[in-house]
Amino acid sequence: MDFSIFKSLLTEYNSFIVTSHVMPDGDAIGSVLALTMALEKAGKRALPVINDAVPKKYRFLPRSQNVRPFIPEVDKAEVMVCLDSGDSERLEFKRDLRDICPLVVNIDHHRSNSMYGDLNLVDDSYSSVGEMVYFLLKSLDINIDYDIAICLYTSIITDTGSVKYSNTTPSCLRVLAELVELGVRPDIVNREVFEKKSLESVMLLKEVLGTLKVSAGGKLAYMTVTKDMMIKTGAREEDTDGFINYAREIEGVEVAIIFKEQDNLKVKVGFRANQWVDVSKIAEEFGGGGHVKAAGCTVKGPLDKAQELILASVNKYLKEGLQ
Amino acid sequence: MDFSIFKSLLTEYNSFIVTSHVMPDGDAIGSVLALTMALEKAGKRALPVINDAVPKKYRFLPRSQNVRPFIPEVDKAEVMVCLDSGDSERLEFKRDLRDICPLVVNIDHHRSNSMYGDLNLVDDSYSSVGEMVYFLLKSLDINIDYDIAICLYTSIITDTGSVKYSNTTPSCLRVLAELVELGVRPDIVNREVFEKKSLESVMLLKEVLGTLKVSAGGKLAYMTVTKDMMIKTGAREEDTDGFINYAREIEGVEVAIIFKEQDNLKVKVGFRANQWVDVSKIAEEFGGGGHVKAAGCTVKGPLDKAQELILASVNKYLKEGLQ
Ligand SMILES: [Mn+2]
Ligand SMILES: [Mn+2]
Repeated sequence: MDFSIFKSLLTEYNSFIVTSHVMPDGDAIGSVLALTMALEKAGKRALPVINDAVPKKYRFLPRSQNVRPFIPEVDKAEVMVCLDSGDSERLEFKRDLRDICPLVVNIDHHRSNSMYGDLNLVDDSYSSVGEMVYFLLKSLDINIDYDIAICLYTSIITDTGSVKYSNTTPSCLRVLAELVELGVRPDIVNREVFEKKSLESVMLLKEVLGTLKVSAGGKLAYMTVTKDMMIKTGAREEDTDGFINYAREIEGVEVAIIFKEQDNLKVKVGFRANQWVDVSKIAEEFGGGGHVKAAGCTVKGPLDKAQELILASVNKYLKEGLQ
Repeated sequence: MDFSIFKSLLTEYNSFIVTSHVMPDGDAIGSVLALTMALEKAGKRALPVINDAVPKKYRFLPRSQNVRPFIPEVDKAEVMVCLDSGDSERLEFKRDLRDICPLVVNIDHHRSNSMYGDLNLVDDSYSSVGEMVYFLLKSLDINIDYDIAICLYTSIITDTGSVKYSNTTPSCLRVLAELVELGVRPDIVNREVFEKKSLESVMLLKEVLGTLKVSAGGKLAYMTVTKDMMIKTGAREEDTDGFINYAREIEGVEVAIIFKEQDNLKVKVGFRANQWVDVSKIAEEFGGGGHVKAAGCTVKGPLDKAQELILASVNKYLKEGLQ
């Protein structure tokens, strides 16, 4: 992709809002921070705006404390640069973007991008918007310093799951190499982004693994998080993120389920499928939804009744080979 | 490192045993397979010999079914190339290496390498022996095909923990980029190497997490694998790979230890450090070795005595702030 078209913006405009989607991930935050710093290096005024909180694990990034939600009447700029957002609604400005900035630039790597910008730099062959910003800065001849490098590194590493996903390309690996050459420490970024676990979450994992059951001839694996476990370990709901993968990654398992007992006699249910089951259909049966291979719903408790109900349905799907 | 010295071996010799350490990891197996295939491409006879079983998760690698333990009286060669082994004992040939092959070549990246070869290509600045073999093949002008590429990719990705460890360098990232260009699919290697888990290993993880203890003001975390747990869950030794990271990843922890009770009243001890402790020094104190941030040793049991001994030493290191 040719980013040189962006050059004329730097000649014509002086103030920029750099933004990304709510529930920001490492690519959103990393690319917003990197581009903001780069624009400032080019002598421009640049505001990093995200209409949501920066998750704790990304607060190690330089300037991350400057990211804040939009303040109407205060935040003015000529150009809004929207990063990593497939549509304008996910930016949650709750008004027309052109009411804020006359010119909207959309830089993204989501295939389903709605092309909502006046200028759309959209290409799904990039691993991450961080990788796109890297090449953008190269084409603008803006020097990538350590602070920019660590933000771009975080972008790429989060969107590729530390080079584990299928979007890991030779190009993004070479960009990572360049960024390490600029001083980024892979072990430190990875520790911040992927590793830092609380003792409480590890103790909760132990409890939850103790509930693991495998049935349906090895095709179904499920586990349970009770309110008691949460109290006993002092863990938080977000500590259960990823637990379902312990069930999903067992050899031969097709459907993995996690049951999370809630306060209000309700049970949250998370589903994952590996290959052929469409778990969004199962979740929809119970008023939930999601993607083909990752879905969820909330059902009435108590826990044992909820499990009975859900397991009966999943067993039916597995038996009938429905897709 | 200049690998061209290896060139003369190809002129002078025709038969090679390519070997690595027992309890082989992805670097051991990947580099043995890659070099074996490369030597064959160069018209040589090459035998991949490892005196231990190939773990199930590496059996997706091409030619992995050809790797087998040494057969005396049958396996003859002029040169033994030893990969990824810091000393000759870990190869477990149980006889002098020169009784098998007149010439021993030692290619390794362990800092504590004992230089047991007639030719020693040892450099701890490489992420993995897989990376070294990549540059070796480049210097020998041996074409890296897809089969060799996927073995080298597996080497690098296992030794860097999917580019998460501090040994992740610009060089190894660029090699990964080259290997992806040769057709390696990062997501597929990842699923084979990191994701596929046996039910037994998940049940063992639950047991081992139950032993997790944190001490030294939160800087030390350790866990234990007993023989009973292995019997109860039906897990295999290789299933414990990576367990130590659950201890290492807890916030505030500097040193993580895993104690594995062995059959012969011995205890295997694995160490990991996060930032400033050099665990290779601790391991060396007990006759072991390894890297600054990942090392191991085997000590005399029983388990509780071994733990007492090791913990006292580690506590000393943590207290004195020795590096
Ligand atoms: Mn993205
Ligand atoms: Mn190695």
